[in-house]
Amino acid sequence: MEIAQKFNPQTFASLFDHTLLRADATPQQISALCAEAVQLGCATVCVNPVNLPVAVRDLEGSPVLPITVVGFPLGAVPVSWKAEETRRAVDMGAQEIDMVMNVGLFLSGSLASPASGPETARGLHDEVSAVVAAAGDIPVKVIIETALLTPDLTRHAARICAEAGAAFVKTSTGFSTRGASIEDLVCMFAGIQEAKKSMSQGVIHTRIKASGGIRSLDQVLAMIGAGAHRIGSSNTVAIMSDFTKWYNAQNLNNLNNK
Amino acid sequence: MEIAQKFNPQTFASLFDHTLLRADATPQQISALCAEAVQLGCATVCVNPVNLPVAVRDLEGSPVLPITVVGFPLGAVPVSWKAEETRRAVDMGAQEIDMVMNVGLFLSGSLASPASGPETARGLHDEVSAVVAAAGDIPVKVIIETALLTPDLTRHAARICAEAGAAFVKTSTGFSTRGASIEDLVCMFAGIQEAKKSMSQGVIHTRIKASGGIRSLDQVLAMIGAGAHRIGSSNTVAIMSDFTKWYNAQNLNNLNNK
Repeated sequence: MEIAQKFNPQTFASLFDHTLLRADATPQQISALCAEAVQLGCATVCVNPVNLPVAVRDLEGSPVLPITVVGFPLGAVPVSWKAEETRRAVDMGAQEIDMVMNVGLFLSGSLASPASGPETARGLHDEVSAVVAAAGDIPVKVIIETALLTPDLTRHAARICAEAGAAFVKTSTGFSTRGASIEDLVCMFAGIQEAKKSMSQGVIHTRIKASGGIRSLDQVLAMIGAGAHRIGSSNTVAIMSDFTKWYNAQNLNNLNNK
Repeated sequence: MEIAQKFNPQTFASLFDHTLLRADATPQQISALCAEAVQLGCATVCVNPVNLPVAVRDLEGSPVLPITVVGFPLGAVPVSWKAEETRRAVDMGAQEIDMVMNVGLFLSGSLASPASGPETARGLHDEVSAVVAAAGDIPVKVIIETALLTPDLTRHAARICAEAGAAFVKTSTGFSTRGASIEDLVCMFAGIQEAKKSMSQGVIHTRIKASGGIRSLDQVLAMIGAGAHRIGSSNTVAIMSDFTKWYNAQNLNNLNNK
């Protein structure tokens, strides 16, 4: 638990996008999610666009930000639609945008083979740039859906997203064949480092969001250890409960040892 | 195989929406899908919006229709977004629209409890009406995602969709916890019958599309037996191959018996 020692319950909670993206989530469940996020002190509440008005209303006056998803979860709508969805979401009050990249286009040889040179990355670069422009001052996270990519393509996608202005590169939607892995984060970190080297110093500040299948405190700590600065989870309440138990027990030990 | 005897390979193929909606589908795979659909004589090719231009181009001049999905697969975007997506898809050449209903709102007591009277259905009715209006002459299918509904709510949703002008009620996206079942179709059929009784005679012609997890000829025949007039499958080629083998063997038997 070395990493855990760098946090207290407040700073730990602030890593979380408390998330509910199920198709059958009711407005009542979204309200409960918001109340939990406020009580815990999460960074954000992440909901589908149709539920954004509930989150905006329920989080008003709190430090927790309402955020939403674009092109979710398949990423398979035209770039212009993603940009338009982004503008609408921002107008509705979204404070961050989690967009899904077009994986199929990225995989198709014409746009994304790392072997075929920098011009092949243009599809993804253009897509991220368009959404970043549409979002204005609002940070954009790009979900690259690592389950569908090789390690090399994960690194390559992270680099392109960073160069195109993504605030975060994010592992997973939670709706694909698997969620985040440590290897994903290693590859994404390497891609962001490549972007930093390719651009003027200090231009790129892209960070990593781990999401998809993150259900336990141990998983969260491993993801932070591998470089994640944000965690997306629907199980935040249980994870925070485990963290707080550990934190209180540790403090009691420290007191007893004095 | 009693039901199978009502079809030949041509009429059987015309039941199918040949479908590829994976996030990682490449344009090359969409072109292959279109070629298969043309060769088999399917009703349509069903793809994500980003792949619609490929399908429109590849199917031009053939009797196979390019169709796409709206609010897919979660159904969790505002009604106005679904209507706008529909207008754009129709402008791009979509010949049918498969939209996903907002399951969360439908489940929330305020809008959808069958016990609380007809006014509670307004949310779904308004949503379907808006997309039907946006589609103009283009038929709209409404995916109700039966995996997330009780049998009673499946029947109720089918009735509302029929009353709101859906050309088809469709079981599943293929991205939820399960696909189509025979019980789903029985409930949907009952709901459509209720809609027919509630409206002037001859107004409602809503039919049933079974989709989600349909991989075999036996499944297709069972779905047709339970009232499906359209089948969505990514496994159309194998199913048609099995049907044609059966058909040819049967014809040989008939010749031998003469």
